[in-house]
Amino acid sequence: MSMKTTILTGDRPTGPLHLGHFAGSLRQRVALQNDCQQYVLVADLQGMTDNGSDPQKISNNIPEVLADYLAAGIDPSLTTICLQSSLPALAELTMFYMNIVTVARVERNPTVKHEIVQKGFARSLPVGFLAYPISQAADITAFKASMVPVGSDQLPMIEQTNEIVHKMNSLLPEPVLNHCKALLSETSRLPGIDGNAKMSKSLGNTLLLSADEETIHRAVNSMYTDANHLKVSDPGQVKGNIVFTYLDAFHPNKTLVAEMKAHYQRGGLGDRICKNELEVCLQELIAPMRERRATYIQDKGMLMGILKKGSERAHEVTQNTLREVKQGLGLPIL
Amino acid sequence: MSMKTTILTGDRPTGPLHLGHFAGSLRQRVALQNDCQQYVLVADLQGMTDNGSDPQKISNNIPEVLADYLAAGIDPSLTTICLQSSLPALAELTMFYMNIVTVARVERNPTVKHEIVQKGFARSLPVGFLAYPISQAADITAFKASMVPVGSDQLPMIEQTNEIVHKMNSLLPEPVLNHCKALLSETSRLPGIDGNAKMSKSLGNTLLLSADEETIHRAVNSMYTDANHLKVSDPGQVKGNIVFTYLDAFHPNKTLVAEMKAHYQRGGLGDRICKNELEVCLQELIAPMRERRATYIQDKGMLMGILKKGSERAHEVTQNTLREVKQGLGLPIL
Repeated sequence: MSMKTTILTGDRPTGPLHLGHFAGSLRQRVALQNDCQQYVLVADLQGMTDNGSDPQKISNNIPEVLADYLAAGIDPSLTTICLQSSLPALAELTMFYMNIVTVARVERNPTVKHEIVQKGFARSLPVGFLAYPISQAADITAFKASMVPVGSDQLPMIEQTNEIVHKMNSLLPEPVLNHCKALLSETSRLPGIDGNAKMSKSLGNTLLLSADEETIHRAVNSMYTDANHLKVSDPGQVKGNIVFTYLDAFHPNKTLVAEMKAHYQRGGLGDRICKNELEVCLQELIAPMRERRATYIQDKGMLMGILKKGSERAHEVTQNTLREVKQGLGLPIL
Repeated sequence: MSMKTTILTGDRPTGPLHLGHFAGSLRQRVALQNDCQQYVLVADLQGMTDNGSDPQKISNNIPEVLADYLAAGIDPSLTTICLQSSLPALAELTMFYMNIVTVARVERNPTVKHEIVQKGFARSLPVGFLAYPISQAADITAFKASMVPVGSDQLPMIEQTNEIVHKMNSLLPEPVLNHCKALLSETSRLPGIDGNAKMSKSLGNTLLLSADEETIHRAVNSMYTDANHLKVSDPGQVKGNIVFTYLDAFHPNKTLVAEMKAHYQRGGLGDRICKNELEVCLQELIAPMRERRATYIQDKGMLMGILKKGSERAHEVTQNTLREVKQGLGLPIL
């Protein structure tokens, strides 16, 4: 019996993954997979909650995300990679949980509130989108995850999950569901290459894990630094300087970066040198991922085989939780 | 390949069934089961949408409803009796459909609007209750039912289902889901024994299929007739006269009932004689059901065996629909 911490994490397959995903979650998963029981959920159902009229966008991106996972170093022999839509227990638990959460409560969820405005739903809000925190609670609890890696903007989701756990357990003769804790990412959200606070495909400011040399070169070249750093000898600002934000996020030599920052701030270090340092770092980071990814994406059969195997394993675990919940509710297990 | 019409119907297992169910649906099912492919769904999940905090009320009533079905003459070799919570495809299809129905649309559903007021939900409306028309659409379409027996108050549910069918089919390379038609019950809703428009357990005005002789006797005795029909020789009102409503609903000899009505209206027919005629009729109707039911309810193993067998059959059918929908959406079938 393994006493490893169980972690659930995952992505909505809305497009290939980029450096923002790498910095915010992929490399953390690679680091965690040896010591934790880690499940990575390809959340295709959740992806459809705001792509209801374009479901093929989601299904087409499933192999893309899988190739990214493997390219980034997620090892399917250590991490269970599984598909949300192939785990019926997740939908079934969602149905149970929906009855113990009020519409008023999900409408009050700050993350949902913010996203409803951001996505411009207004009166066209799909029921599935309103219900997605409940579906996410089903995901987390089905795996009995005790740790969930999230950004700080997702903390209300963890709170809502634990409310559901508490309420559901109180309806059962003995507790079945686990409370969970947020595992906050060390890196704050990576800004886009244009300096926008968010790196996102729709803003066209990403660097994909499949980015070629020329794209990386141009991206680094075009990055804003400090608009007031006109001469090399001028003291420069490090805060809000995207080049340094990226060096902080990706450069393996933290001492070197600290020295560069000090030098830049007192004056005498040119943007060109900083950008060169960053470009070398990104080229070295991305090249092996790009190459592995190019091989993997050719082999859909292999990718689907990994997903099938992981989903079978996840099916066992999640069915077990569902069975316990149903038994607790007194429902027949036919 | 059978070309029989496929019918889906069912009940929320919130309590044992009563004469209102018998008049409104059970006897229709018995009549239809020879000529149609009939599925009867024990809708435990739907029962929990407004019993979220008392799930055991639902699970405890599953065998009660099964015993009522068999007692009323539903034959499991002709009708497939199945359990909603044991059919994962229903929850999974609900998840897909929730993404193509807006919150505004379900809030506008007249049946839902009415029930929200009736049940006094206000701000405590559970998400599951708001979503139940979508879940019902999943039930109907999963079985590819073309006919759904409903009361006229449920017509908006059929309309909503067909909207979902239309929208969902438009997202798939070729149509998968069937449109459905309402099969309106011939009998209008049976009033309670106290004359209240609705027979319901919470109003204490029902006659259960397990009612004993004395209960039936007292129920008929206490029925209101025509408050102005003071002397036997007075002309009496038939409209709104519960005894005649029940004679209409249950007496096998329609000619006799027509003659009695005419006699009552012109005067000379006493309430006592009418009530005696009704009591004999109800005693004869209920006695064999009561006896069968008393035997069946003792044998939970047999009841669950029937439910298991029916649910296995229903699982095949509903999984098939789910598979077609997933394939159409381009999702991997792992």
